[in-house]
Amino acid sequence: MTYCVGILLEQGLVLASDTRTNAGVDQVAIAPKMHVFEVPGERMIVLLTAGNLAITQSVVNLCREQLKSAEGHANLHNVHSMFEAASVVGAAMRSVHQRDGKALKEHGIDFSASVLVAGQIKGEKPRLFNVYAAGNFIEATPDTPYLQIGETKYGKPIIDRVIKHQTNVADAVKCVLISFDSTIRSNISVALPIDLMIYRTDTLSAGKRQRLTEDDPCYASIRKGWSEGLKAVFSSLPDPEWCA
Amino acid sequence: MTYCVGILLEQGLVLASDTRTNAGVDQVAIAPKMHVFEVPGERMIVLLTAGNLAITQSVVNLCREQLKSAEGHANLHNVHSMFEAASVVGAAMRSVHQRDGKALKEHGIDFSASVLVAGQIKGEKPRLFNVYAAGNFIEATPDTPYLQIGETKYGKPIIDRVIKHQTNVADAVKCVLISFDSTIRSNISVALPIDLMIYRTDTLSAGKRQRLTEDDPCYASIRKGWSEGLKAVFSSLPDPEWCA
Repeated sequence: MTYCVGILLEQGLVLASDTRTNAGVDQVAIAPKMHVFEVPGERMIVLLTAGNLAITQSVVNLCREQLKSAEGHANLHNVHSMFEAASVVGAAMRSVHQRDGKALKEHGIDFSASVLVAGQIKGEKPRLFNVYAAGNFIEATPDTPYLQIGETKYGKPIIDRVIKHQTNVADAVKCVLISFDSTIRSNISVALPIDLMIYRTDTLSAGKRQRLTEDDPCYASIRKGWSEGLKAVFSSLPDPEWCA
Repeated sequence: MTYCVGILLEQGLVLASDTRTNAGVDQVAIAPKMHVFEVPGERMIVLLTAGNLAITQSVVNLCREQLKSAEGHANLHNVHSMFEAASVVGAAMRSVHQRDGKALKEHGIDFSASVLVAGQIKGEKPRLFNVYAAGNFIEATPDTPYLQIGETKYGKPIIDRVIKHQTNVADAVKCVLISFDSTIRSNISVALPIDLMIYRTDTLSAGKRQRLTEDDPCYASIRKGWSEGLKAVFSSLPDPEWCA
């Protein structure tokens, strides 16, 4: 399993992914799911991947190889909009499906994969897309300014309660880390370290990237503060009258 | 969809279920999912149901009809332990499967159902079981003193953070209501009103039952207090240094 989330803020993007991959409980490894395509000063595009690792690694590799191909072909370094970037990733997904889909089906394996495509290309605002296994995609909007893939449910309530498009970056980062903490507590197949990127609008270069382990003092203090804070809020709530 | 949760405390049981049933988004109705079998002073047994409504209603009806059948047959009014009570419900599930399983399969419909069986029979402590569609079942223990069925994920993190076997009833009720609020916010197929039962150990009769609507002042004040409290905790958390 996997958990990735992207948040589209006025101030920029907050992107995070876990790093656990597993094929059964006896085959667990660390694999990065955050992939950066950058031309500093001009574009910064990040892919966050979830699903079958063979599929998602193929999609990312195809996107990388296209950068070297003859001019004229659309790739993540020459497209003019994030919409086109999402199309490029969707087309890569369809290529992999064309190559592997039939064989996977014969083995009874779902073609399961999705990719968050987030970033900014000069001339546009930051944008955030979710590319599905079929290569089609949706875009986040200010009304619902986040997208999740993988094990999304445990970490969703806190995002729903806190995140708005106007939320500042620091609050969004705190919220994302709490969302990960909730997910990691509830699903053993999502695990540290967390790859976290903070992208500020119009910087057009890969922002601050952190790989957070359990020992990270900031992550630890957020987890502890949140856990203790929740208990305090709990105590302060009035006891329901029917409990008397 | 449905959400039901049962919590096994030293002080008793806290049980709750939503009341929404739907067959597609254009066929939405209210159906109770909390069913009480009681012999005051001797036993109090509650079934909470999730899954295909035709299956779960059949299971509950079979359990009711058995009460009238000839003596000698195990039913929920004569079994000597909650373990046997779970067996009775499991056997009813298997009867329904025998009657409907093949026809459902021919129509491509999963035989999907589960039942929480909670309560106390004189001579035992309160106990809590989850009966699966196959009629087999597991029991909650003091280490993990709760069971959920239906749309379980959104409401799980808050329970994982707060509930222990030693938690008092009032805190457990608050936690369950917050768990429902988180689920209802995230999944439109889970909805108010909530049926809530508070059972105190050794009372051996149906405890306080509440049907909570949006207008319930206590539920409203817990939702508001929680929402505002979370925001306050959020503000109090230190900004991550990498956000500077």
